[in-house]
Amino acid sequence: MTAKAEAIYMARALELAEKGRGKTSPNPLVGAVIVKNNNVIAEGYHKAAGKDHAEIMAIKNAQLSVAGATLFVNLEPCCHTGRTGPCTEAIIKSKIKKVVIGIKDPNKLVSGKGVRQLRKAGIEVKVNVLSNESFYINDAYLFAHQNKKPFVILKLAQTLDGKIATTSFESKYLSSEQSLKYVHKLRSEVDAVVIGSQTVKYDNPNLTVRLVKGENPYRIILSRSLDIPNSLNLIKNNKDYKTIIASTEKSLKAFSLKNRKVITWSLKSRKNKIDLHDFLEKAEQFNIRSILCEGGSKLASAFLAEQLVDKIILVTVPKIMGKGIDSFTSFRSEKLADMVSFYKHYTVASGTDNIFVGYPKWGVA
Amino acid sequence: MTAKAEAIYMARALELAEKGRGKTSPNPLVGAVIVKNNNVIAEGYHKAAGKDHAEIMAIKNAQLSVAGATLFVNLEPCCHTGRTGPCTEAIIKSKIKKVVIGIKDPNKLVSGKGVRQLRKAGIEVKVNVLSNESFYINDAYLFAHQNKKPFVILKLAQTLDGKIATTSFESKYLSSEQSLKYVHKLRSEVDAVVIGSQTVKYDNPNLTVRLVKGENPYRIILSRSLDIPNSLNLIKNNKDYKTIIASTEKSLKAFSLKNRKVITWSLKSRKNKIDLHDFLEKAEQFNIRSILCEGGSKLASAFLAEQLVDKIILVTVPKIMGKGIDSFTSFRSEKLADMVSFYKHYTVASGTDNIFVGYPKWGVA
Repeated sequence: MTAKAEAIYMARALELAEKGRGKTSPNPLVGAVIVKNNNVIAEGYHKAAGKDHAEIMAIKNAQLSVAGATLFVNLEPCCHTGRTGPCTEAIIKSKIKKVVIGIKDPNKLVSGKGVRQLRKAGIEVKVNVLSNESFYINDAYLFAHQNKKPFVILKLAQTLDGKIATTSFESKYLSSEQSLKYVHKLRSEVDAVVIGSQTVKYDNPNLTVRLVKGENPYRIILSRSLDIPNSLNLIKNNKDYKTIIASTEKSLKAFSLKNRKVITWSLKSRKNKIDLHDFLEKAEQFNIRSILCEGGSKLASAFLAEQLVDKIILVTVPKIMGKGIDSFTSFRSEKLADMVSFYKHYTVASGTDNIFVGYPKWGVA
Repeated sequence: MTAKAEAIYMARALELAEKGRGKTSPNPLVGAVIVKNNNVIAEGYHKAAGKDHAEIMAIKNAQLSVAGATLFVNLEPCCHTGRTGPCTEAIIKSKIKKVVIGIKDPNKLVSGKGVRQLRKAGIEVKVNVLSNESFYINDAYLFAHQNKKPFVILKLAQTLDGKIATTSFESKYLSSEQSLKYVHKLRSEVDAVVIGSQTVKYDNPNLTVRLVKGENPYRIILSRSLDIPNSLNLIKNNKDYKTIIASTEKSLKAFSLKNRKVITWSLKSRKNKIDLHDFLEKAEQFNIRSILCEGGSKLASAFLAEQLVDKIILVTVPKIMGKGIDSFTSFRSEKLADMVSFYKHYTVASGTDNIFVGYPKWGVA
């Protein structure tokens, strides 16, 4: 089979995997395609946690014998017994001849063992076909198994020259309708959204999922001073009880919260700032595995300075503002070598905007 | 013929037109394709000023009769006698049946008259096929015929968050090798490059065309104070006598220029700054029809504030700097509605960088 044909079948597996988006947590998105004599004879994907894995569903779906066929799957097949049996065993039993894998699974229970089991059984295994795409589709899962902290996505909408608001804090709505939908979709895919107090005061957002279908995430106001009014939409319109105020014990005591349904988190502070490590630990305890930081500039900079960001999304509108509020006010690179770079990144069009997506690599400083 | 087929032939005409790049000035880049019975029977392009126009070359190149054929040309055929005869006349005489045009020619000598002459002769004419691409390829020419001033291109290399240098002015080399080549190509396509005194001091550039083949443009240092040393590369390495220092009469008198081959321009000042309108007039008199402004931030902002920029090119590297020197230091939009937007824009990849190209539309303020 040519590399091009392999890429086409893997692209189909990824397309199938995508169907599970929002339903498989804590499991990854996985799709599988079985090909025999240059024909797709079966397909499958992981529908939801507890349901069949993609490989199993594909094998079950096959009308013809899969003996001698090639299996395409975007993530390394599991070799441990979770709520379902190990996939490697089923693959070996099915007499599939070759397995093409998008990317290895960093989950310690798999992590290369799946590949070794298959090879030991005489199955030909090829890894890293559309590995970038296979990484992107499960970025949060792949990170979570390498880092014991929630996956932090930093999203800002900015101008071409890196400004998120005018000097008088006007920023609504900077980006295109299509980009707003994209952000609502992002919200529906994370467990929580976090926002700083200044942005919450100026924008007074709801942070709910409205422009697309999906579940509302937890909405966290992160503020040391708690210099915010009780009339904020996040406090007032908290019908689903998913608003959280995270601050220091002292500030929480001083703040007379009128909505009793708002959850409060008492956090440590460090150098006159909320300790973001403590914040993420608290989130982890709360079973929040992914957090979208929607700004503003100070909070974004603080996450960046602490190197706690796993993914950066910059919605860039084709406008030039000149003087205004910087995307990253309180972050500084002394030298060019200190800058945040990206070990993987791509840009997609969104209406008239561009959306940059990158996985940060920290500077030398 | 389908719209898709028309686009394919026009794309070929544009590809042919591109071959004349750098040689046709003051004429535009034009390519022509003649199609008969779904076959390309002839091609042509404008090789250089004084040589045959693209349509004429294509008609001459045809081995079969062009009677009844369709001509594709990215710019409206001329109808005036310049150094060569009018194209419309040759087209009518050739019995071509249909003419498909990329974009109308705003040149007052043509400007719709070409189309009218063809239609009057019974030829079917279609305009605006790949009109965006037809605009981009001749942007400087199209602008020059609508505005009586040199075409000003503003180019900056910046980070994702709109910074062109660290706070200690480190900026060399921010962008990728491929983007540097792109900039050298840009230089080879303009009559002059202009740079502010601060950037010239910190970067000490040569502003010559080295990474690609092409002619060096004039190199203009624009500075009111002339607080620059004689040891600058632009002054020292001026072998082709194309360095120009533009300043006020007073500053020029006070500055003891050691290289007698450097050209000096004495300009008016306004509100303690060089009058950029006067600068462009001077350039126009010098027969400079296109100028590339390579920064820094202050000069770029000044051109922007005076709305004297016709094209903006932002080479954006996938890095985040945080605090640093803004791309546009001294330009400000009080409200979102005041921002510079773009009536046409696109983004292309350049190595790991993205290059944004836009034609500015000024804010309401």
